[in-house]
Amino acid sequence: MADTTSAASTPPLKNELDIVIPTIRNLDFLEMWRPFFEPYHLIIVQDGDPSKTIKVPPGFDYELYNRNDINKLLGPKASCISFKDSACRCFGYMVSKKKYIYTIDDDCFVANDPSGKPINALDQHIKNLLCPSTPYFFNTLYEPYREGADFVRGYPFSLREGVPTAVSHGLWLNIPDYDAPTQLVKPLERNTRYVDAIMTIPKGTLFPMCGMNLAFDRDLIGPAMYFGLMGDGQPIGRYDDMWAGWCCKVICDHLGLGIKTGLPYIYHSKASNPFVNLRKEYKGIFWQEDIIPFFQSIVLPKECTTVQKCYIELSKLVKEKLSKVDPYFDKLADAMVTWIEAWDELNPTGASKAKGK
Amino acid sequence: MADTTSAASTPPLKNELDIVIPTIRNLDFLEMWRPFFEPYHLIIVQDGDPSKTIKVPPGFDYELYNRNDINKLLGPKASCISFKDSACRCFGYMVSKKKYIYTIDDDCFVANDPSGKPINALDQHIKNLLCPSTPYFFNTLYEPYREGADFVRGYPFSLREGVPTAVSHGLWLNIPDYDAPTQLVKPLERNTRYVDAIMTIPKGTLFPMCGMNLAFDRDLIGPAMYFGLMGDGQPIGRYDDMWAGWCCKVICDHLGLGIKTGLPYIYHSKASNPFVNLRKEYKGIFWQEDIIPFFQSIVLPKECTTVQKCYIELSKLVKEKLSKVDPYFDKLADAMVTWIEAWDELNPTGASKAKGK
Repeated sequence: MADTTSAASTPPLKNELDIVIPTIRNLDFLEMWRPFFEPYHLIIVQDGDPSKTIKVPPGFDYELYNRNDINKLLGPKASCISFKDSACRCFGYMVSKKKYIYTIDDDCFVANDPSGKPINALDQHIKNLLCPSTPYFFNTLYEPYREGADFVRGYPFSLREGVPTAVSHGLWLNIPDYDAPTQLVKPLERNTRYVDAIMTIPKGTLFPMCGMNLAFDRDLIGPAMYFGLMGDGQPIGRYDDMWAGWCCKVICDHLGLGIKTGLPYIYHSKASNPFVNLRKEYKGIFWQEDIIPFFQSIVLPKECTTVQKCYIELSKLVKEKLSKVDPYFDKLADAMVTWIEAWDELNPTGASKAKGK
Repeated sequence: MADTTSAASTPPLKNELDIVIPTIRNLDFLEMWRPFFEPYHLIIVQDGDPSKTIKVPPGFDYELYNRNDINKLLGPKASCISFKDSACRCFGYMVSKKKYIYTIDDDCFVANDPSGKPINALDQHIKNLLCPSTPYFFNTLYEPYREGADFVRGYPFSLREGVPTAVSHGLWLNIPDYDAPTQLVKPLERNTRYVDAIMTIPKGTLFPMCGMNLAFDRDLIGPAMYFGLMGDGQPIGRYDDMWAGWCCKVICDHLGLGIKTGLPYIYHSKASNPFVNLRKEYKGIFWQEDIIPFFQSIVLPKECTTVQKCYIELSKLVKEKLSKVDPYFDKLADAMVTWIEAWDELNPTGASKAKGK
């Protein structure tokens, strides 16, 4: 994998990765991440009031977009980017010109591993993304490519090469990513269990993708990383990353790409208000009972050979099958198309996509 | 779950669980397990020369079967029980009258957790078996029913009740369960990574089930725990547990049962000879390239409502689809039928099976 002899001098993927941060406040949290993030370029997506000034600690290399910038850049297509919801972060994925994206919430701090050493989350994500995935058969010793591990007896040799990894889903110590009802029932629960594992989510299995600590290969899966319509003017919130995760998973399964979950951990410092969350989530909580079987039943036609084609096909299926759950899905299906149009406008000729293959 | 207030006095499932041990030598390894195993009944399946005497440390409650006993009890049907291969252990599953089985190899010792505390593997297996599985959706914080964990945001509420757990697959510290080629390439590799996780293997995903440290609910899945034809007179070895695992997984998926993997760890003391293993495995290594797609493609008809019916159907499919890979599978398919006949003879009227539902 990465040449560790030179790792000390040049951070891995220094010129190939952007860090995307959605925020409404000054980015003091970056101080703690300085040793790990400072070498990289940041894309800050300012949510809410665009007249407010977001302070970024000195020394960081960044570009910042507020709502006015988004509207200016996308024109009418800006309608597909959520407002007053961290779903707006996906705008950053679209304007990036890099192959890899890492996105993190501004209430996430550096966690320590069980030995007390600060965890360089970004470095672990990069390792995950640069190492194949194994979605077709389960390895009981978890990530087979890690130092000290391998494929176990009975693992077919033809599957040991793996497939390219498109997504690396990291986890959270301290405040777990619970829904509002679970937050209300278990207000004091903290995640203190450091599970030293990385694993590929098997083909055909859906998972709840959290956007708090997430990295992906933009060339491989970028156009499917749309965080939907949430927040201002929408009947729902806090399902942005879930939606993206379900779309990405069925597309990765179709295209033969992998999604990993597990390490790295970040330290999630503060729980969001469960009462506010309940208001945002409650429609999602019953809609997802229809959404999950919908995604589980999807079979994309083999003509869908690019992420864009898959995503447009998915938007048609959303319109066809989920609009009857709520008219919201009709709007969402249209926004999915707008998102792809805007993506292709900002990323012309699919040059980047072809490069990644 | 278990009432922990009385746990100190009565070991969990004391009268409902048998420990099955296949062996060719004196069972000195039991000394180390005494605090954990002594309250339970052991079924020892003596492999190889039946005239040899196997010494069992005093104080253990056990019954022992050698080849003569197996032949006497099963008559011509004894042909389905392997000889000179630890696959013979499945005879013990058949003669047990208990609801739960734990099986362990005689080169497996008590492992320590990261704090240095000896791990009561059996106790963790019992916890796993008594707690539901979640095969229909992936939980990123692993076992949602554990202390300090739960279902994360985006996990459908309708799936949080889970399904009954049929199998608990434990792991191994020190010598990992590698195939002969991997053993040869990495003779010094040791598993030192204690991964503090338990997880359900998702529906539709196959896994390599190792028989070294394995527990299951005999009422729910027992008749599918057949370890096949291995060893003496057979062209293959070391695929006994794999075969059982693949059969169990497709049947669990069909019947709505769960399989867990992860904790508990045992300490696997000595690697078997990789040269001998290569001779036993080499046909399996290329056959499995056909076997895995075969199992991945299986759809059992909905008329198969019991494990026995599923297993007989599976035997037909093996005969139909795998016989062309090698005539061995024709013999194996017949042995699968003989196994079910012998099982039903020793476990009449399905009384035990009905009880478990």
